[in-house]
Amino acid sequence: MAVSGSALDRLHQHLHHTRLLGSISSTLYYDQNTVMPAAGAAWRGEQLALLAGQLHERQSSANYGELVAAAEDELGPDAPPERRRNLQLLRLDLERQRCLDPALVSALAKAQSRGNAVWQDARSRNDFAAFAPALKELIALRRQQASQLAAAEPVSRSPWEILAQPFEPDVSKARLEELFVPLKEELPALLERVAATPTPKPPAIDLPEALQEQLCSDLLDSWGYDASRCQRSRSAHPFSCTVGPQDFRITTRVVPGQPLSAFLATAHEWGHSLYEQGLPRTDDHYFPWPLGEATSMGVHESQSLFWECRVARSRAFAERWHARFCADLGSGPISGPTSGRTSGDPWGGAFGFWRALNPLRPGLIRVEADELSYCLHIVLRFELELALLEQDMPVDDLPLQWNQRMGELLGIQPQTDSEGCLQDIHWAEGLLGYFPSYALGHLISAQISETFEQTNGSIEALINSGDELKLQAWLGKTVWPLGRSVNAEELVKTVSGRPLSAQPFLSYLRTKVDELSARS
Amino acid sequence: MAVSGSALDRLHQHLHHTRLLGSISSTLYYDQNTVMPAAGAAWRGEQLALLAGQLHERQSSANYGELVAAAEDELGPDAPPERRRNLQLLRLDLERQRCLDPALVSALAKAQSRGNAVWQDARSRNDFAAFAPALKELIALRRQQASQLAAAEPVSRSPWEILAQPFEPDVSKARLEELFVPLKEELPALLERVAATPTPKPPAIDLPEALQEQLCSDLLDSWGYDASRCQRSRSAHPFSCTVGPQDFRITTRVVPGQPLSAFLATAHEWGHSLYEQGLPRTDDHYFPWPLGEATSMGVHESQSLFWECRVARSRAFAERWHARFCADLGSGPISGPTSGRTSGDPWGGAFGFWRALNPLRPGLIRVEADELSYCLHIVLRFELELALLEQDMPVDDLPLQWNQRMGELLGIQPQTDSEGCLQDIHWAEGLLGYFPSYALGHLISAQISETFEQTNGSIEALINSGDELKLQAWLGKTVWPLGRSVNAEELVKTVSGRPLSAQPFLSYLRTKVDELSARS
Repeated sequence: MAVSGSALDRLHQHLHHTRLLGSISSTLYYDQNTVMPAAGAAWRGEQLALLAGQLHERQSSANYGELVAAAEDELGPDAPPERRRNLQLLRLDLERQRCLDPALVSALAKAQSRGNAVWQDARSRNDFAAFAPALKELIALRRQQASQLAAAEPVSRSPWEILAQPFEPDVSKARLEELFVPLKEELPALLERVAATPTPKPPAIDLPEALQEQLCSDLLDSWGYDASRCQRSRSAHPFSCTVGPQDFRITTRVVPGQPLSAFLATAHEWGHSLYEQGLPRTDDHYFPWPLGEATSMGVHESQSLFWECRVARSRAFAERWHARFCADLGSGPISGPTSGRTSGDPWGGAFGFWRALNPLRPGLIRVEADELSYCLHIVLRFELELALLEQDMPVDDLPLQWNQRMGELLGIQPQTDSEGCLQDIHWAEGLLGYFPSYALGHLISAQISETFEQTNGSIEALINSGDELKLQAWLGKTVWPLGRSVNAEELVKTVSGRPLSAQPFLSYLRTKVDELSARS
Repeated sequence: MAVSGSALDRLHQHLHHTRLLGSISSTLYYDQNTVMPAAGAAWRGEQLALLAGQLHERQSSANYGELVAAAEDELGPDAPPERRRNLQLLRLDLERQRCLDPALVSALAKAQSRGNAVWQDARSRNDFAAFAPALKELIALRRQQASQLAAAEPVSRSPWEILAQPFEPDVSKARLEELFVPLKEELPALLERVAATPTPKPPAIDLPEALQEQLCSDLLDSWGYDASRCQRSRSAHPFSCTVGPQDFRITTRVVPGQPLSAFLATAHEWGHSLYEQGLPRTDDHYFPWPLGEATSMGVHESQSLFWECRVARSRAFAERWHARFCADLGSGPISGPTSGRTSGDPWGGAFGFWRALNPLRPGLIRVEADELSYCLHIVLRFELELALLEQDMPVDDLPLQWNQRMGELLGIQPQTDSEGCLQDIHWAEGLLGYFPSYALGHLISAQISETFEQTNGSIEALINSGDELKLQAWLGKTVWPLGRSVNAEELVKTVSGRPLSAQPFLSYLRTKVDELSARS
């Protein structure tokens, strides 16, 4: 690394190098999840651990600390505010790294790896008791971590809040509780309304893989997919990742018997990717500085949910794609109740197709949840995390508490822990503080959508005229270039002029339920 | 890195870490050539340069030098010979790294990169004069490099020999000249014999991509392809690479109008991969030590050529696969002179199919050359490299010399330099000393095959009975586990009991020409 130039230049070089290492790690992750043969796993783990060690060293070394301090010293009173913000964000991350006892970091890494293994086994055998000791240890270690990190926080924060900072900067429990109250009040009633409306059982449909692949391809093409900068592959679980400033990857999967799954997942992952593609990279203050990064998981999720829920699950979109899905089915086999038919419309029209895109029914599993119940799954987890971390709820009480609260929130209760409190991987890896970002994503997406409609007319109308690229252009002007100049709440206020609220989301859902209930 | 344990343990750790970095680089290379979008190239270049820098540092640092020296000091008189050999090979590489002036390394890297760019352009415009200055600079720098490296050589070597060491350890000009004499004497006559035999023009056949992919897949399955350790992808140029001790990748491509190309290239790359898969890895003295590595490019090529030429181009193999190719053609369109036919046999029988797998006709382009003319292309390049590096032949004379010698060796002359001395990328990147390994591959493959047949009966008979896995088992016992315990010539002597010679190769070709000429 060159040591000439201003401190800022040297810091820039350091961050650039760090970005290179991080993106190498992303490339290995992408390869691992798309093409790597199974026997490569152990070696890949060693490669990733080596890079993680190098990254940690770069982000916490004395040399890096000196670079940041020197750049701060250079910062005159007339320095551009972007530069000041970049250094503030770097300083905060650095202080957090410094607070941590390396012995704790290492103990946590081991407990996370062990937790994952124990959880896999416990879930497959529906044996919560086998998982409980691992979870207790993880919670204890994470409490210790929060206590060490407290010294670096610019304001007083609770342990849960401290652990949530990496995902959702500046998030507070009080604010989340405030946002979640209307969800807890209104969503169960909306679910009951839908439950009272009889709907036909969705037909069992198998759309051949090659046709589903083509549908995903065509969807992306219609949304500006540029093969010179993007690559789509197959993986067991869909994801999006950025492996270079001009190199964006997304993956999809085809789920047998679920002809809409790959299509919707593609829309979702493309939303994540569009946000990454639109992050500011050109100016001196952006790439590879913090201002060029995504600001929070909630905002990231708002972008994926926007394309999945507001666009791909919209009535106008259903009307546009219905004929295409029917035509594709005409060329492929149809199994189940409609078996033997070689063409036709298993949904009985575009409205039925739209309903199939929006199956509003409470279920036990979060990752399969619809727009009405999803946030209730999150509220459940958020409240249980607080209870476990801050209110001394015994880990052994978790199954009972889970089932009871599930009944209260969603009106259903799991028969086994495997489809209850053992269903998610997050806690098994010690990940606490992450879940609320999923719910924030729904709220932010709805509030941004409402703002768009106030000045540009209805999104449905825009989709009707096939103008989704106008939506992209607006997001690309309004949302994506903000990077980390604002946190999630500030972003919403900047874009919409109002504080974040659950009302736009609830209003959107009420309308959807109204329309879906109108014809049955 | 742990600093406890014996010096040998610490050196083992160091090499393990180096292997991790090297394999990360291989993964990036694989990704780059299979899925990376074009716009990712610049960033990928920076990632690879970063890793190359780290690798260079690890392989030439004072710390590494001390580790090697300490391990040498530990080496008692009763140390296992494998350990001694490992340390000798490491010491030689280390001394070579140390001899090089970093300024020269850097100048060479720049000249190579510039050379490639200038060559791309010069070749496309058929403008040798535009390329000549870049080539002159590269040759001057490589001469300097050879002169710096001379101090590390354990025996006296000419500049060309020094530059060839990384590809073919212990290779000498005198030995190559000795091996090439019979090739120069006999191959032109064999080519003339074939030329005198009228053969029908091969039919223009288009086999759809999906069918070619399936053929390649089925070929690999019949040769023990294990999806839990291997991955096959598509790339612009076929290659094989190892990205972890249990993670092997190969790529293929479908060439329009050449229905046999992907099939033969798959056999070739699988041969490379089998060698890598069979290298010794279990014992303390192997992975990640030198003894666990491939011993030379010539030996590597012998393994790929074995599966491509001895097996996939054999008459027995043609007889086995002929029906399958005809069946596949029956389900796909046929263009060219046979256009309009929807099924049938464009080769007029299994013999014709075998002939199509062995088009023995001299051509201008090395990478398209057949088994008879390939080595003559190599002799041409070898002699010109010696002339340029050691005999003061002016670079400006290269086109004239190329065309004249081409006429003498192969009886044909290029009309343009683009299909003459500008055709290969090697010199454009300063790669001198590499070409002979290709020819050695043919010779080694033939001598190993002869040895196999002396104790196991004819390879054709084995293929006839579908027993190619027996060939793999034999190579896996006899050739692959040798690693770097022997150089290429020693390997041949170990396996066959005789020094390497061109006779087995020429004898194999004479038989093939006899059989191909018998029916025309």
